[in-house]
Amino acid sequence: MKLPRALDIDRLVSPRSIAIIGASNDSKSISGQPMRFLMQHGYQGALYPVNPKYAEIAGVACYASIESLPTKPDLALILVAARRVPDMLRQCGEKGIRYAIVYSSGFAEAGVAGAALQRECAAIANAFGLRIIGPNCQGLVSTNTGVYAGFGAPFGVNYRPGGLSLISQSGGFGCALLLMADELGIGLRHFITTGNEADVSLLDLVDACIDDAQTSLIATYIEGLKDARRLVDVATRALDAGKPLLAWKVGNTTDGAKAAASHTANLGGASTLYRTAFRQTGVIEVTDVADLGDYAKAFEAKRLPGGNRIAVVTLSGGAGILITDTCSERGMTLAPLSAQTLAALEPIVPSFASLNNPVDLTAGILAEPKIFADALQIIADDPGIDSIAIMAAAASGDVALAMAEAIVRVYRSTDKPMMLAWNARRDMASKAYDVIEQSGVPLYATPVRCGRAFAVLSNYAQARRAREMARLAPAPLRRHVRQAHALLAENPGDLTEHAAQALLAHYGIDTPKGALAQNRDEARSIARSIGFPLVIKVQSPDIPHKTEAGAVRVGIRDEAMLADAFDEVVANARSHVPGARIDGVLVQEEIRHAVEMIVGVENDPSFGPAVMCGLGGIYAEALKDVAWRLAPVSHADAHAMIRELRAYAILNGARGKPPGDIDALADAIVAMSAMALDLAPGLKEFDINPLFVLPAGKGVRAGDALARRLPQLAAASSEAHESEHCAQAVVDG
Amino acid sequence: MKLPRALDIDRLVSPRSIAIIGASNDSKSISGQPMRFLMQHGYQGALYPVNPKYAEIAGVACYASIESLPTKPDLALILVAARRVPDMLRQCGEKGIRYAIVYSSGFAEAGVAGAALQRECAAIANAFGLRIIGPNCQGLVSTNTGVYAGFGAPFGVNYRPGGLSLISQSGGFGCALLLMADELGIGLRHFITTGNEADVSLLDLVDACIDDAQTSLIATYIEGLKDARRLVDVATRALDAGKPLLAWKVGNTTDGAKAAASHTANLGGASTLYRTAFRQTGVIEVTDVADLGDYAKAFEAKRLPGGNRIAVVTLSGGAGILITDTCSERGMTLAPLSAQTLAALEPIVPSFASLNNPVDLTAGILAEPKIFADALQIIADDPGIDSIAIMAAAASGDVALAMAEAIVRVYRSTDKPMMLAWNARRDMASKAYDVIEQSGVPLYATPVRCGRAFAVLSNYAQARRAREMARLAPAPLRRHVRQAHALLAENPGDLTEHAAQALLAHYGIDTPKGALAQNRDEARSIARSIGFPLVIKVQSPDIPHKTEAGAVRVGIRDEAMLADAFDEVVANARSHVPGARIDGVLVQEEIRHAVEMIVGVENDPSFGPAVMCGLGGIYAEALKDVAWRLAPVSHADAHAMIRELRAYAILNGARGKPPGDIDALADAIVAMSAMALDLAPGLKEFDINPLFVLPAGKGVRAGDALARRLPQLAAASSEAHESEHCAQAVVDG
Repeated sequence: MKLPRALDIDRLVSPRSIAIIGASNDSKSISGQPMRFLMQHGYQGALYPVNPKYAEIAGVACYASIESLPTKPDLALILVAARRVPDMLRQCGEKGIRYAIVYSSGFAEAGVAGAALQRECAAIANAFGLRIIGPNCQGLVSTNTGVYAGFGAPFGVNYRPGGLSLISQSGGFGCALLLMADELGIGLRHFITTGNEADVSLLDLVDACIDDAQTSLIATYIEGLKDARRLVDVATRALDAGKPLLAWKVGNTTDGAKAAASHTANLGGASTLYRTAFRQTGVIEVTDVADLGDYAKAFEAKRLPGGNRIAVVTLSGGAGILITDTCSERGMTLAPLSAQTLAALEPIVPSFASLNNPVDLTAGILAEPKIFADALQIIADDPGIDSIAIMAAAASGDVALAMAEAIVRVYRSTDKPMMLAWNARRDMASKAYDVIEQSGVPLYATPVRCGRAFAVLSNYAQARRAREMARLAPAPLRRHVRQAHALLAENPGDLTEHAAQALLAHYGIDTPKGALAQNRDEARSIARSIGFPLVIKVQSPDIPHKTEAGAVRVGIRDEAMLADAFDEVVANARSHVPGARIDGVLVQEEIRHAVEMIVGVENDPSFGPAVMCGLGGIYAEALKDVAWRLAPVSHADAHAMIRELRAYAILNGARGKPPGDIDALADAIVAMSAMALDLAPGLKEFDINPLFVLPAGKGVRAGDALARRLPQLAAASSEAHESEHCAQAVVDG
Repeated sequence: MKLPRALDIDRLVSPRSIAIIGASNDSKSISGQPMRFLMQHGYQGALYPVNPKYAEIAGVACYASIESLPTKPDLALILVAARRVPDMLRQCGEKGIRYAIVYSSGFAEAGVAGAALQRECAAIANAFGLRIIGPNCQGLVSTNTGVYAGFGAPFGVNYRPGGLSLISQSGGFGCALLLMADELGIGLRHFITTGNEADVSLLDLVDACIDDAQTSLIATYIEGLKDARRLVDVATRALDAGKPLLAWKVGNTTDGAKAAASHTANLGGASTLYRTAFRQTGVIEVTDVADLGDYAKAFEAKRLPGGNRIAVVTLSGGAGILITDTCSERGMTLAPLSAQTLAALEPIVPSFASLNNPVDLTAGILAEPKIFADALQIIADDPGIDSIAIMAAAASGDVALAMAEAIVRVYRSTDKPMMLAWNARRDMASKAYDVIEQSGVPLYATPVRCGRAFAVLSNYAQARRAREMARLAPAPLRRHVRQAHALLAENPGDLTEHAAQALLAHYGIDTPKGALAQNRDEARSIARSIGFPLVIKVQSPDIPHKTEAGAVRVGIRDEAMLADAFDEVVANARSHVPGARIDGVLVQEEIRHAVEMIVGVENDPSFGPAVMCGLGGIYAEALKDVAWRLAPVSHADAHAMIRELRAYAILNGARGKPPGDIDALADAIVAMSAMALDLAPGLKEFDINPLFVLPAGKGVRAGDALARRLPQLAAASSEAHESEHCAQAVVDG
């Protein structure tokens, strides 16, 4: 596997000098705009326009070629037609330039010829150690250095400096997010658009921003990550660094993914695995422009709650209900106030106030700012409360100002998160708005948006705590099993159930008692050693779906029935697939009184091995009650997966049935994770369906197992390096 | 059941004169504000402040009592303390006043004494034929007449007249919606807050607005409907009238519902049934302030699509992906353009444009407004396209103006819905924004919001078409079965399975062959007539959960096994519930090779009878794969319910199994609806679980059935009228 080169973006975002290759003297044209914007925003470094057509542009000396530049610039902006880009990159490389931004379109997003051109660019970058942003991108902004190196009206805006670094695969949409963040008063550190990512990827830049001391918050707009398997590592690093990572992943439907492929040519794993990776690593998922701003505001206040218990203080009953719904649906608790808090509140609040949580002080309290302030302080001091939401409804005028001042006083007295929903029109309460905005108390236009932001903050704090626990817990199981590799080497195609069960046994997953019989006599002798009832199943690499072929019989109660059934299933198999290779008939104990689950692994081309668990049998496909994790999966992860399932209620003993062996199920999930990591990339898919979960203490049994190998062709073609690795693993085994 | 009095709101919203009971001369106080706002907005009718403390208020003569008013006002506003309200209402009634708005708090929302006071108000209203809005409400606005009869800053805003009537149970939140609609340029007809609804309910007002010629769109904010069972009728009337009905239902979580109860004291049915009712009748559900504005804008353009096929024309690939995801997730189709359309487009658009749908013309097209306009026109003319979304990204300046003019030209040439997402800052494209806004093309800040609005428009158009079909289809089954009523009369408690099966037979739902045996000999004789395999189950009204009691045996293969099992289940039942009344042992054929479903009815206290269907057995509770409809349920509804289930894939023949008898399942759902309507309110719940669905053509069998009767006490207490009706039904039966 190709290891990513660690990216030092220091000279990219703080270049001492910039060459502008293909600069135009028409400052309105795309190739004229970067120079105009750099000058407009007071960039202090040297500018070197390169274009043989001009002697100077906007009073700056213009050079005929890259070679003729008087010095080696830190950064080159490339604005020439696609076909001329490789040549320019080569000249940059020869000059010793380290960073180039390629704005030009006409690469992988435009078909086969463009893709070839893009590969050529990547090879040149690789040869010279030149790092390329783009092609087909819109450039970057770095506020501290005044680097506004892009085109389009949003580069004309002067962004206030701050802690947000925004990395976007789409230029247009990145700009939309940028403008919105600015309108909400969120300060910007870096804005970088990555386009087709011939070389530098979005994850490279996120990784670099984690180490940037002035970045406090990272937001991303993702169409698809070619290096998706790095997401978990990079996101975990961000979590450890305490820099919230927001991600907006688009292209989640079939049609949407198709559209993404023809936009920036970024293809990645299924949206399920993105969501899985996000959840696993505390990445905050965003689903519209407003979310990004709302969540950024919450994080930029730099207070995390100690738990999920929120108190709502409201001037409007309706607003109280709304934020209660919003928070409850997202796992927060409207905790009852302590007896002490209630005793302190009761004598001071008016009789019509409701002291349940939400605490409804009603709009009448605005007439008594002192009581409002005292009540808020008492609630904020309740040790059973982790954060406080204030629903100010449409409070306006002088009373709103008094309210705002009270809120700010309480905010300064506590380190708990406090946020505010308030929908007065600006012109009806402008002084009060000013007071709140200057204080840093996050302010939302609606209770729903405030509640969503609180839930995101609370979930992020929870992810940080879970990460701390995970660091202390034993590392997830990883194993290298030589016999398993040998078994795969001996069975180059898809595995039969019997071979798959042997594989499982190597990783400690139990299978029902049983053995392979070549004839009726052998079957009878196996039956005697196991006992009835039994199931029998024809084993053939050519018949993966045995039930449909009539190659399975269950409920065999005695030897006579066994003999008849043996002949019948073999005959059925032969007539279902004429000429099928038959390895034998598996004679197996019949498992009863178990919950049927499915546990599987999939080696995703983008994310690598992922593990799933769900309700098994015929329900697995139809009901889609399934939990996923990217490997490696720890025991804590496995238990969390099981609890996510609606089927958890069944495993836990529904309707008087005994609870299932959930610990053994978790062990099986962890073992499957270890197997997937050990055998990837040689194994494409491996499902145990059903996995019989017996009553607690009795373990699990792999009822049937189906393996799909990675086609040799695919493994060999795209990444020669990976394919070698695979062959190596098999030989080692 | 109390029949609602039809409400004529003409004199309520267009009063010729208004009395203001408890008016204050402090124009900033709550009781001073209504008079101030009425004068400020130029109300032309007569104003009669009533307060013995003053001779005049703001130059208007003030009266000492209601009795002393020189004429009978059309409307009274009541602003006195709660305890004085009944007396004022009585005086209003004596004066012959027809409408009163009670603003005062301290009624049902404030506890038992307040609830009694509220009932007293309702009784007075009833006695005098006086209609009351409130108490605990914030008043009303009616733009045409300048009636701004409320308190709070939002009543100081001058709303532009238009077609939106907004009815809200919450004053504060209603005002928030009102302000937002106004900011989005949506014109207002009526705004009415209903508070505790002692008399006039939100549905009364919706019903009245359907008949108001100037109302084109109705929006509601609902905490709970006491008369929820009217929702289907009122919403269907709105659908027939072509007036979209938007509903924001809050209090959907347990905590949220609790908060709602202590706010406006409105309690209603479970949120599932609200959602069911909304979906069944084309009500558009809203989940935040912005939705209401976004959807209102879409509807106020007054174009409905002929189908769900949308074309997306975009200047930004990212925006194209986003709206594609949004529309696809909500049932719309990004239809391929016709060959003719493609042939017309190809010669004119630039080579880098993508002509798949989304059609990505890229931002470069802005330089060529003529090509943009021509391409848009060609796409709009494609007969395979029902609506067109335009993603203008951040288009700014002069080119944006040309784009806007082109869009408006195409909009005028077609009657298909066209909407626009555009995120340029207002100051960067103000002329273009003006052009779009004047044209009436709905404009959204983000592709996601535009896509959501399109999906809502498309689903509403679909609901209108479905309603047309339903009008032509035969009416849902309703039956009156005397024997069923007789059976209930004979069995006053919960029914045993055997009795419940007899009930089902009366409505045409098949049960497995079987009969009740009192001893082993009877059991054997029944077995001979049915044949093996069999199941046996103890029948006792004291043992509703037979399996847990060990009172069931399945898989009985012969007479010897039957005899043993008979003794065993009786012994188990007796030891599980000592002294249990045992009606006998049900001996029944064993059903195999069937899909186990659940079909049930519930008589909801708010909505009345509702029917559910889902995957049965132990999965029903855990997996919550369930579809609901309010009764009566037609065959078309029943089939739609079945298709909504994820279990549909299993019913339809998963993994080589034969498809189930879906028609028979639908018949059973319809029959259960008929039964529920016939036996309500005497029947609280009735579940068939499992309902065995046999292979197609072989029907269904009710495997087990559990009935819960309405407790007599509950029926008697709250609504005497209903309880009588119930007793009547049982006696009739």
